[in-house]
Amino acid sequence: MDTVALAQAVIAGDRRALARAVTLVESARPDHRAAALALGEAMRAAGRQALRIGLTGTPGVGKSTFIEAFGLHLTGQGLRVAVLAVDPSSARTGGSILGDKTRMERLARDPRAFIRPSPSQGALGGVARRTREVLALVEGAGFDVAIVETVGVGQSETLVADLTDLFVLLLAPAGGDELQGVKRGIMERADLILVNKADGALRAEAERARADHASALRLMRPRAEDLGTPPEAICISALTGDGIADAWNRMRDIAGRRQAAGVIRDRRRTQAQAAFVAEFRAGLLAWAEARPELRDALAPAADAVARGLSTPEAAAAGVLARLDPD
Amino acid sequence: MDTVALAQAVIAGDRRALARAVTLVESARPDHRAAALALGEAMRAAGRQALRIGLTGTPGVGKSTFIEAFGLHLTGQGLRVAVLAVDPSSARTGGSILGDKTRMERLARDPRAFIRPSPSQGALGGVARRTREVLALVEGAGFDVAIVETVGVGQSETLVADLTDLFVLLLAPAGGDELQGVKRGIMERADLILVNKADGALRAEAERARADHASALRLMRPRAEDLGTPPEAICISALTGDGIADAWNRMRDIAGRRQAAGVIRDRRRTQAQAAFVAEFRAGLLAWAEARPELRDALAPAADAVARGLSTPEAAAAGVLARLDPD
Repeated sequence: MDTVALAQAVIAGDRRALARAVTLVESARPDHRAAALALGEAMRAAGRQALRIGLTGTPGVGKSTFIEAFGLHLTGQGLRVAVLAVDPSSARTGGSILGDKTRMERLARDPRAFIRPSPSQGALGGVARRTREVLALVEGAGFDVAIVETVGVGQSETLVADLTDLFVLLLAPAGGDELQGVKRGIMERADLILVNKADGALRAEAERARADHASALRLMRPRAEDLGTPPEAICISALTGDGIADAWNRMRDIAGRRQAAGVIRDRRRTQAQAAFVAEFRAGLLAWAEARPELRDALAPAADAVARGLSTPEAAAAGVLARLDPD
Repeated sequence: MDTVALAQAVIAGDRRALARAVTLVESARPDHRAAALALGEAMRAAGRQALRIGLTGTPGVGKSTFIEAFGLHLTGQGLRVAVLAVDPSSARTGGSILGDKTRMERLARDPRAFIRPSPSQGALGGVARRTREVLALVEGAGFDVAIVETVGVGQSETLVADLTDLFVLLLAPAGGDELQGVKRGIMERADLILVNKADGALRAEAERARADHASALRLMRPRAEDLGTPPEAICISALTGDGIADAWNRMRDIAGRRQAAGVIRDRRRTQAQAAFVAEFRAGLLAWAEARPELRDALAPAADAVARGLSTPEAAAAGVLARLDPD
């Protein structure tokens, strides 16, 4: 199948075509890259958008159970839902294909859902680059909601917040943010906090945690994109389903408010411009490292720096002097 | 004065030459850059090292008072001390030349001390790049101790920790780390915590804060570079001078232990290699942005992305296609 036919099949809703397109986008082969760019352009021309929801939470907080319950709630309303993951550990260890589908077994079997595990290779930045392109594919394929999930480690949350329209933080009922390993910067990015496991014996504790987070959120500087409305914190139980419908209603409210004010359009524009700069820089570096006159000079220069025979600045300038002047 | 003569004067201990050399290093002019590289190589060849101490703490914690008391303690022992600053706010607002010298008035007049304010321009990453080169200058000039100070905001602390041999965190006696705005990552990088203002009415509170931090430090994963010795927390008073000598003794202990184990050498090698990569990337980007065939294409491509007429990936690939293939 050529790229044009593949793009048409993706847009027509062919799931196998979508899976093939995602594989192409995640491939590092130069011919695949050219096809991926053409696919991306075809998706852009299709002009479809999903609501992009970023979701983070530390391990053990119940992200999979939540996504399964939340995703089934959406598909139950006739919505088509894609679930993608940006997983730094997977970026290191080589993917979690079985993991992602078995931990959300019912959602994985739902014909209105599409679950795509983390790309199986590459540095975190590279994984995020490809996730951006996969998001465009599922949008072109007509999905209504795209959930980008990440485990709250390192910088992956910031990357996910930068890829999405709204950002949801899932917390456990117990302990402060510090105990849950949630970084302050993430709390500041959250548009909605869901305190999970608000069931059985933990119910009261969850309510206390919710009240604490709600006060903390009210103290934060109001963000322009929310027109003065501070982010909220609510209790849910992914296990019993309590609060799942409420969570979706609040997300729709935030999205609707932002959509009406043009905030989503502006955010996406800013995100696209940042992605352009990042792509340009990454591509430039790849080009330079493939140039024989640089490639052959980089290793000896790095070695001279390591052995203290050259300053980093002079060594870098020496390598760069091999580029054509202009 | 040519570059060779300037380098010789710096190495001979001429303070005016050192000030001129720092100005050259901080300049963005291409001819100054070439001179700066030559100066850096001359300093490297001189083979002198200072103990590089990174110092951070949120505003109001008493950094200036501490540096003045600490610096005078060192010069009182016959040591030569340089004080540099990496200040993100200064990077935005355009320097703090008067500020740095007036807030450490006695130290500024001490002939064994050299105080250099933050570079007055450039992005934070650029400020850190130049601070690295200024460090090499004060080492070449024979200073025994170089203090690199930063206000604990954003990513400046990480940059400073990456520039130095040991990293000291100055805290106020009251409140948890969260209240003081200290990020978890910074606590993890600290080699020594100084609880300041342990005088008068705050004495007992400072001791409580010290004990809290000492327990927290003991719970952290021991670091290989300290051969199992956890970082310590002590009380000081920059106002009365209590604990200043103790702080210096502990820093010397840490430095001596690391020096003996080869840790400082290894760290500096790693730092130099990272600086080489950063310099290469920054220089490559500057080269590319100056190439007419790229420069002329970048703005229209960014514009097409902003207007939704091109994907970021295709737009970046289009610009990069103008580079010579190889």
